[in-house]
Amino acid sequence: MTLGKVIGTVWATRKDDQLTGMKLQLVQELQLDGKLKDRFIVAVDSVGAGVGETVLFAQGSSARQTDLTRDKPVDAVIVAIVDKLDVTGDAN
Amino acid sequence: MTLGKVIGTVWATRKDDQLTGMKLQLVQELQLDGKLKDRFIVAVDSVGAGVGETVLFAQGSSARQTDLTRDKPVDAVIVAIVDKLDVTGDAN
Amino acid sequence: MTLGKVIGTVWATRKDDQLTGMKLQLVQELQLDGKLKDRFIVAVDSVGAGVGETVLFAQGSSARQTDLTRDKPVDAVIVAIVDKLDVTGDAN
Amino acid sequence: MTLGKVIGTVWATRKDDQLTGMKLQLVQELQLDGKLKDRFIVAVDSVGAGVGETVLFAQGSSARQTDLTRDKPVDAVIVAIVDKLDVTGDAN
Amino acid sequence: MTLGKVIGTVWATRKDDQLTGMKLQLVQELQLDGKLKDRFIVAVDSVGAGVGETVLFAQGSSARQTDLTRDKPVDAVIVAIVDKLDVTGDAN
Repeated sequence: MTLGKVIGTVWATRKDDQLTGMKLQLVQELQLDGKLKDRFIVAVDSVGAGVGETVLFAQGSSARQTDLTRDKPVDAVIVAIVDKLDVTGDAN
Repeated sequence: MTLGKVIGTVWATRKDDQLTGMKLQLVQELQLDGKLKDRFIVAVDSVGAGVGETVLFAQGSSARQTDLTRDKPVDAVIVAIVDKLDVTGDAN
Repeated sequence: MTLGKVIGTVWATRKDDQLTGMKLQLVQELQLDGKLKDRFIVAVDSVGAGVGETVLFAQGSSARQTDLTRDKPVDAVIVAIVDKLDVTGDAN
Repeated sequence: MTLGKVIGTVWATRKDDQLTGMKLQLVQELQLDGKLKDRFIVAVDSVGAGVGETVLFAQGSSARQTDLTRDKPVDAVIVAIVDKLDVTGDAN
Repeated sequence: MTLGKVIGTVWATRKDDQLTGMKLQLVQELQLDGKLKDRFIVAVDSVGAGVGETVLFAQGSSARQTDLTRDKPVDAVIVAIVDKLDVTGDAN
């Protein structure tokens, strides 16, 4: 999974029917030190993550293994809201 | 999903039979500020997206989860036309 | 799908039995302006693409959705020979 | 598979139910010379890898082929703890 | 598929049971001119490739389509040993 921060929401009325009702969150990737990377993704939210929260998202076919996204044309889904990172090894 | 802008169309008469009738759109990736990235993809259009529109596309096996693309050799599909981005978190 | 140009062929006699008879083409990725990128892939050819032709290739599990490649250990397949790109949006 | 080093753990109480009980490890990618790359992933641990250990992780749908992760929204899993690398070819 | 050169072997005694008996080879990616790229992967060997040989490897779910790797947590497999590259187009 990839570490990111929810920074906003995407609104789209014209879309594949299977996406109806899904919340599409903008998630920017995070470095280990909490700084934002220059990469973001649009992920379906399956855990009620709000803007500003640190999350984990899964990509690819694994993004279709939640109840909400099964068999849907979704390639990224938020699967967890992060409480804490314990970085105990030497990260650099 | 990935944020992009439709910038053109690809024409191909010699192709896998399963692609017959599919519109192949050139989609260039977008930054959060609306500027174009130096990356593009060719995606099947399943939502009637025209040139100049901002879209979301899904990749990989998830690109085969629309009615149009199921079981086809397609690895990118446009799944939504974006109305608006709400970037409310600190994106940088 | 990804835009590329066929620049050569790979010859391999010792290989997984399931690849027997498949033509393995070297495909270099293309920029929108027709220049070659510094990235290439080896793709199975399912449409009779010759050296010098501009093609689209599909990757990942989608590369196994042609008659030729179904259930084979193939992660890239040429699915179309490009006639023309219409880039009508502002690509930069 | 990708070579990495376990450098820490992610704690998340609000998550997809299917992730309950899984240990989420921070794994930073390694170069051949043992130095850490500037890339990390969050992987489910299926082999009891501790912080500081060198591991191999699998990604994508292959990350769902362990007993622990089958059909779960998991896109990275640690599958081996590395004892030794024999680099006998000229690596540069 | 991706072009690479076998440069070594990974030894791991503690691993997912499904990897038992598989040879895990270090494969460094190659440029078209035969120089090594700064990227490597650990791939299961299904064709008896030795150190120093030029190979093709498949990634993702396609890496599970050999007899050796089917349904295993393996995301890269060597599928061919390369005899020769014919680069007849203008590669630059």
